[in-house]
Amino acid sequence: MAEIQAGDHVATFISVFPTKPRDQRKVLDLIVKAHEEMIRHRPGYVSGSVHRSVDGYQVVDYTQWRTREDFEAMVRDPAVAPHFAPIGELTQGKQLAFDVIYSHVTAEEETGDE
Amino acid sequence: MAEIQAGDHVATFISVFPTKPRDQRKVLDLIVKAHEEMIRHRPGYVSGSVHRSVDGYQVVDYTQWRTREDFEAMVRDPAVAPHFAPIGELTQGKQLAFDVIYSHVTAEEETGDE
Repeated sequence: MAEIQAGDHVATFISVFPTKPRDQRKVLDLIVKAHEEMIRHRPGYVSGSVHRSVDGYQVVDYTQWRTREDFEAMVRDPAVAPHFAPIGELTQGKQLAFDVIYSHVTAEEETGDE
Repeated sequence: MAEIQAGDHVATFISVFPTKPRDQRKVLDLIVKAHEEMIRHRPGYVSGSVHRSVDGYQVVDYTQWRTREDFEAMVRDPAVAPHFAPIGELTQGKQLAFDVIYSHVTAEEETGDE
């Protein structure tokens, strides 16, 4: 499973896609397809997690990469455009690079995982 | 560290706070303070991770709870208002409940963590 921790052990990108309830399923399917067919095979990829808002109005894609340059190289590569084009027809996502500055897990949960 | 996995083992809330570069540090400090003084002590809290966009224009708070009701009970509790009020003076965050429908980690990374 993907792990979040404070610091710069990975480069984090969070992409927020506004959707409508009637389109959300299609946006999700296209993003998962892009992950399975392309994103996870790119150099520097660490993890990818796709989130569906319960209200139907958002999809959030949370990805981790070895470096920011790895993500940016993917976005710039003309070979990936066919994977993103059908998503772009449904929603204009905003993709930003993030640093994790704080991450905390309840002690009970941590013990339970050990 | 916080863990993301597909399925409903936790209830996920992602809050996106628009900021300006000159305000981002203050928003981050207030959100981390709210986590340390209040959020992590609430019933049903599992994890919390605060993200700073590199461009200065967003803060993303990614929290996990045992159930959605745990999060909603926190938000409704009048006792928490003093923790959120100073954040609300700087930014209007959007808090949504999410399901994780896909999560994948590169095999190399998983092996590296074992």
